Amino acid sequence: MKKDFIDTSDFTKAELLDIIDLSLAIKKAIKSGYHPPLLQGMTLGMIFQQSSTRTRVSFETAMQQLGGHAQYLGPGMIQLGGHETIEDTGKVLSQLVDIVMARVIEHDSAVRLARAATIPVINGMSDYNHPTQEIGDLCTIVENLPRGKKLEDCKVVFVGDATQVCASLAMITTKLGMHFAHYGPKGHQLAESPSAACLPVIEENCRASGATFEYGDRRDLVKGADFIYTDVWYGLYESETPKEERVKTFHEYQVNRELMQLGNIGCKFMHCLPATRGEDVTDEVADSDASLCWDEAGNRLTAMRGILVYLTRDRVLPTDLQLAAAKEELDCFLAARMIR
Amino acid sequence: MKKDFIDTSDFTKAELLDIIDLSLAIKKAIKSGYHPPLLQGMTLGMIFQQSSTRTRVSFETAMQQLGGHAQYLGPGMIQLGGHETIEDTGKVLSQLVDIVMARVIEHDSAVRLARAATIPVINGMSDYNHPTQEIGDLCTIVENLPRGKKLEDCKVVFVGDATQVCASLAMITTKLGMHFAHYGPKGHQLAESPSAACLPVIEENCRASGATFEYGDRRDLVKGADFIYTDVWYGLYESETPKEERVKTFHEYQVNRELMQLGNIGCKFMHCLPATRGEDVTDEVADSDASLCWDEAGNRLTAMRGILVYLTRDRVLPTDLQLAAAKEELDCFLAARMIR
Amino acid sequence: MKKDFIDTSDFTKAELLDIIDLSLAIKKAIKSGYHPPLLQGMTLGMIFQQSSTRTRVSFETAMQQLGGHAQYLGPGMIQLGGHETIEDTGKVLSQLVDIVMARVIEHDSAVRLARAATIPVINGMSDYNHPTQEIGDLCTIVENLPRGKKLEDCKVVFVGDATQVCASLAMITTKLGMHFAHYGPKGHQLAESPSAACLPVIEENCRASGATFEYGDRRDLVKGADFIYTDVWYGLYESETPKEERVKTFHEYQVNRELMQLGNIGCKFMHCLPATRGEDVTDEVADSDASLCWDEAGNRLTAMRGILVYLTRDRVLPTDLQLAAAKEELDCFLAARMIR
Repeated sequence: MKKDFIDTSDFTKAELLDIIDLSLAIKKAIKSGYHPPLLQGMTLGMIFQQSSTRTRVSFETAMQQLGGHAQYLGPGMIQLGGHETIEDTGKVLSQLVDIVMARVIEHDSAVRLARAATIPVINGMSDYNHPTQEIGDLCTIVENLPRGKKLEDCKVVFVGDATQVCASLAMITTKLGMHFAHYGPKGHQLAESPSAACLPVIEENCRASGATFEYGDRRDLVKGADFIYTDVWYGLYESETPKEERVKTFHEYQVNRELMQLGNIGCKFMHCLPATRGEDVTDEVADSDASLCWDEAGNRLTAMRGILVYLTRDRVLPTDLQLAAAKEELDCFLAARMIR
Repeated sequence: MKKDFIDTSDFTKAELLDIIDLSLAIKKAIKSGYHPPLLQGMTLGMIFQQSSTRTRVSFETAMQQLGGHAQYLGPGMIQLGGHETIEDTGKVLSQLVDIVMARVIEHDSAVRLARAATIPVINGMSDYNHPTQEIGDLCTIVENLPRGKKLEDCKVVFVGDATQVCASLAMITTKLGMHFAHYGPKGHQLAESPSAACLPVIEENCRASGATFEYGDRRDLVKGADFIYTDVWYGLYESETPKEERVKTFHEYQVNRELMQLGNIGCKFMHCLPATRGEDVTDEVADSDASLCWDEAGNRLTAMRGILVYLTRDRVLPTDLQLAAAKEELDCFLAARMIR
Repeated sequence: MKKDFIDTSDFTKAELLDIIDLSLAIKKAIKSGYHPPLLQGMTLGMIFQQSSTRTRVSFETAMQQLGGHAQYLGPGMIQLGGHETIEDTGKVLSQLVDIVMARVIEHDSAVRLARAATIPVINGMSDYNHPTQEIGDLCTIVENLPRGKKLEDCKVVFVGDATQVCASLAMITTKLGMHFAHYGPKGHQLAESPSAACLPVIEENCRASGATFEYGDRRDLVKGADFIYTDVWYGLYESETPKEERVKTFHEYQVNRELMQLGNIGCKFMHCLPATRGEDVTDEVADSDASLCWDEAGNRLTAMRGILVYLTRDRVLPTDLQLAAAKEELDCFLAARMIR
């Protein structure tokens, strides 16, 4: 059975921890200079309905470092659901590459692509969630746990607009038994967002794992935070109110020295980037020792490697004997036909 | 002498069968898990004057699987015949990559590029023909020969508009001694198409090989078909009549259950894809056991590997001794200059 | 300390000669069929604010031939200094790739990127200079020195508009102690160009190395040339006078038989390409035995390999023992978790 990575809700807590551990184990190996050839000869097709820097670059580097190759199928280079149905594109790509990732405008496109494809499909962000970001962020949190705390002791506060990154962070933290709060203005909370369908998932997570979930526009939600996370204020949705209006709405949700001081001593700052300095975060915070945002960017790559290896780990590799036989047969053919 | 792959008419029947056999032999090796390093260290430059999914993805995967790398030079990324002449681009690329493929708007661009370049040039489709598709389709036919039949016993019927895929299929099937018919409306037959120049080629093929070639708008041309092939109805030409008009023109040429039943028992369905379901083909046919269209998509990759290896098979590889000497000399230089 | 390649003025004469020698040594190895794995597993991020053929293709081939991989981040695929600051992009890419090259509209963008990044940054051309072209051109000159002459004996004459290629050639030739002249019309000389800041650099170079630098619209500047170099006449600047006007301005600066005959016996023709045949150069000259422009195109690749290896030569590689330990540790982890 092929595995997809469309939504972390499709995985158990133990499986998600496995993916995080695997990601960190590979990171350690590569930092030591060992590039494990775990994706030797494999090809990843990367479909982008919207442009991307971090997701694209980290997938492409991940494939290269593990012995494979990623193809960039950018906006306009390949259709996804125009003339050809998404299902047909999925079937065709299943013949031509080994894994597919898709950054999609509508979440349903990723779901349909995964259903039709016979190879693993990875959701590289949709209007609903951003599951590869989740794994990378959890890697960053695991690497930066407050002294003496376990994951389950930590509080993560997302500040600002309830973007798909907010929804994703809420889903994975509650799945893992952590404490999550969203501090954001009315009208921009999860229930009112394109990711509203995550709410029952989060509730179920809390029931199962002992996690807690809070939200609202009360500033004291930030109290006790171990990690304060934010995202940009505008440029996110097809139709959104003018920039000026959004800046006004989110103005008091800027992550600055005062807001950071509401968190625990040693509270860390996180941002999925790009940041708009002076708006969603001040230079002082972004460039401080408390800022994990560059580590987070690096852990996009950490996560991609782990997810790619996890999804392909069950494939059947040939034995040395089978390899030798196949080589022998082809070499004979080439020699007989005078083709070297 | 460098070899190009611009038109299958430039190859003998024996050479084309060699390319097909080679393609299938490499496919078998890769299916067994052995990736032969036949293009180790080589670079393919892929020029696309028009966007493409199947051709681009399959070339890029082919290069990766055989140890090389393909560069995507998409529309707007590189000029072909603007400020710089096509000939000059050909000479420059000959210095920077090892092989070139070009999907061109005008066939003559591919011809001129091949003439100027000192490295192999592959035609990745023009307004005249689509020769890599031909090899892939013949691989599919060879893999699905009706029980007890040889290639020369088979009848292939192309239904609908006389596109460059139709012309290409006509040329290769008649070259190989097969029986080809085009069932399409008046005004959309080969003589009236941008590929009209293929007609003398087809006639010559028939004379030489015992093949037959028929065309017309009589439905009984489909009778006795072993393979029924179609393509999309619109979106093909710079200036074409409105979609509605074309849909009306081709309406009775839809490949559906009734049309399939005119073929032989066990007749197979083929399509170069993308398909417009409900128009050029019904879901029932496209998704049936008789449908080879997904195999065909996979055999685009099969063909690309075979063609790439065939065109580069005569290059002189260094002996182990030469390699060792070159390594030794460079290592000495690096050591002397303190450059590792 | 990481090294960047933004401006050849940042390097000593000895260092530049080292890069040229290194480039030629690697070229020799690859010509012998030995692809040294000097960039094994490394990833180059290629940012293009403007499209490019030669620079892009040569960098991508260079990475492939040396065991690495280049990612094409074309116009519109990645922002450089929009929403996200150039500095932040530099910090993010430092986490995700090993080297960055950028073709930038404004020189300052490359400078800022290099300052912020913790990995080597290469300037792939700016409005001020084109330093990778300089190395390639010097490789070509070294390979084609007039019999009995040293570099310091040669005279290079750039004809036409004082583009950034002209400025770059002036800087490197004078750094190396050669004799440089620019023969171009008033209003299009270096002092009036976007590269005017190169003039004090050139003067300092002449003082230090014994080089000479002349310019003007006197045709006799071409006398004694060993190499005559030119570039296109229009399409270079955001706002430039109409093509017709520029053609009129540069008309008498065409490199043709008459102009070539002003140079020394055996004088060579060079062009960074693309050329506009019949305008900046005649067919007779471009296609003559005296023309080095195709060698120059090939030496773009020569230069890229050399520069990439030079910038990364100080990185610490793991010992075999460290590699084995890292492999062992990861293999244990994978085995324990049933992940192959």
